[in-house]
Amino acid sequence: MSSYFTEDASAEVVNARIGPRADRRLAEITTSLVEHLHAFVKDVQLTQAEWEVAIDFLTRAGQICSAERQEFILLSDVLGVSMLVDAISHRRPPSATPSTVFGPFHVEGAPVRPLGADICLDGKGEPCLFEGTVRDLDGRPVEGACIDVWSDNADGFYDVQQPDVQPRWNNRGRFLTGADGRYRFRGIKPTPYPIPDDGPVGRMLGHLGRHPYRPAHMHFLVTAPGYEKLVTHTFVGEDAYLGSDAVFGVKESLIAPFERLEDADTLWRSPYDFVLAPADTRDGALPRPTTP
Amino acid sequence: MSSYFTEDASAEVVNARIGPRADRRLAEITTSLVEHLHAFVKDVQLTQAEWEVAIDFLTRAGQICSAERQEFILLSDVLGVSMLVDAISHRRPPSATPSTVFGPFHVEGAPVRPLGADICLDGKGEPCLFEGTVRDLDGRPVEGACIDVWSDNADGFYDVQQPDVQPRWNNRGRFLTGADGRYRFRGIKPTPYPIPDDGPVGRMLGHLGRHPYRPAHMHFLVTAPGYEKLVTHTFVGEDAYLGSDAVFGVKESLIAPFERLEDADTLWRSPYDFVLAPADTRDGALPRPTTP
Repeated sequence: MSSYFTEDASAEVVNARIGPRADRRLAEITTSLVEHLHAFVKDVQLTQAEWEVAIDFLTRAGQICSAERQEFILLSDVLGVSMLVDAISHRRPPSATPSTVFGPFHVEGAPVRPLGADICLDGKGEPCLFEGTVRDLDGRPVEGACIDVWSDNADGFYDVQQPDVQPRWNNRGRFLTGADGRYRFRGIKPTPYPIPDDGPVGRMLGHLGRHPYRPAHMHFLVTAPGYEKLVTHTFVGEDAYLGSDAVFGVKESLIAPFERLEDADTLWRSPYDFVLAPADTRDGALPRPTTP
Repeated sequence: MSSYFTEDASAEVVNARIGPRADRRLAEITTSLVEHLHAFVKDVQLTQAEWEVAIDFLTRAGQICSAERQEFILLSDVLGVSMLVDAISHRRPPSATPSTVFGPFHVEGAPVRPLGADICLDGKGEPCLFEGTVRDLDGRPVEGACIDVWSDNADGFYDVQQPDVQPRWNNRGRFLTGADGRYRFRGIKPTPYPIPDDGPVGRMLGHLGRHPYRPAHMHFLVTAPGYEKLVTHTFVGEDAYLGSDAVFGVKESLIAPFERLEDADTLWRSPYDFVLAPADTRDGALPRPTTP
């Protein structure tokens, strides 16, 4: 009958405290969180000294966050939580192109360019032609799809990470498909790069014997009226980090061919077709959770 | 054979990435954390929007932290994790006085005062005599035990929360037992107070239908050569918040009598005996974990 804390009933005692007027979804989430968190602490028999290290880690992670740096998203990424939430939120038919992590480097409003245009504005890197078709689940071309693309430059940095060095909108652009569903643009063969590893998350990776690199990839945000928004990448086949992406973003079917061309101006060609799922009407109906 | 991410094997894929040269204890902790964290996300089917709320919550918690404010300790406290870690770290024989949360308001080096001295320096509150005996497991008095005590004042604030209002060392002091193991000091009958609730953790408690109050208590840190350090409180019996301490610190055997006296100067008397366990030699041998 006592509601006092005991080691054995620790999670039950905490969860019994949730009040009758609690936000229902937050109560559901918190109840599960407390159960799993307590089970974790018991499993590893966390010591007071280790708890202090954890408090300090979270504090330093919070304090390094800024307009340009999000250490908690990074933490979620390297623990595979971002990919898991993405998987849960974007279940698609197996024949549709799968999604992967959005990443922090997308910028709204990239210039809409004519099909075939070059998005590389700094002249660095190995020119590559990206092309393919946007289709629906029945294989029919999707007209008027918007392909929003972005990648790092040949030095491994996005334009927003080097605003004083790279031209604005370098390696970014939007392209619209015609009646044949085809897209085509020129960029560069992307290069692998490390996630920001000079903070608590980077140190943690080091102590776990993990590297901070992402395999080379091109970001795609594909939208079309009546279809589910697709956030994904294509990965460069044979990249050394394909099997060890620091944020677990790689999926087999997202690995794209990069074919060497006999063309002085365009060294590579990467063909890739996107298959969109129909818009899920549940999407708009999901209630926004209460901010705690 | 593929090490690519899948929803089903999400935790296994992440944990398989830990390298052969990882810090062993950190690897053990991280493996369990990833398993429980992924199980939690799957249990509640966490949405992308909810994940964003969580990232924002952690970020705000980190950014409100300062030399005077530790929001992550507060979070650990209200989720019962601090009490759980304390329970795991300080298992004692059932006849020994149990520990409870340390709290953020202890200050090293409080004045050592003669037995019977008054620690209330601001003249506020209802005077109370605290007295009792420090014993070992066999009931023998412990000589030379140091009783380090601290409490809030009658307005519900510790001196360090009001450095410009309260005298320094108000409601704090250290007392040494003689050959009879007895301690005795004057203070005030403590008052309940809310934990800092103007940040993300306070808002979360509100959305969970929980209040932020702690029942009235006196903090004790009892040390003696050859005995395990005891961090605990005594609670005022009949306090309205005894059954709903915001940080779950109450244990049945820590509820002390507060007897009304027929004395104009000392309105209350709270007798309480402490029973110390012998020093655990494992304590000093526990390896300090690597800071990630």
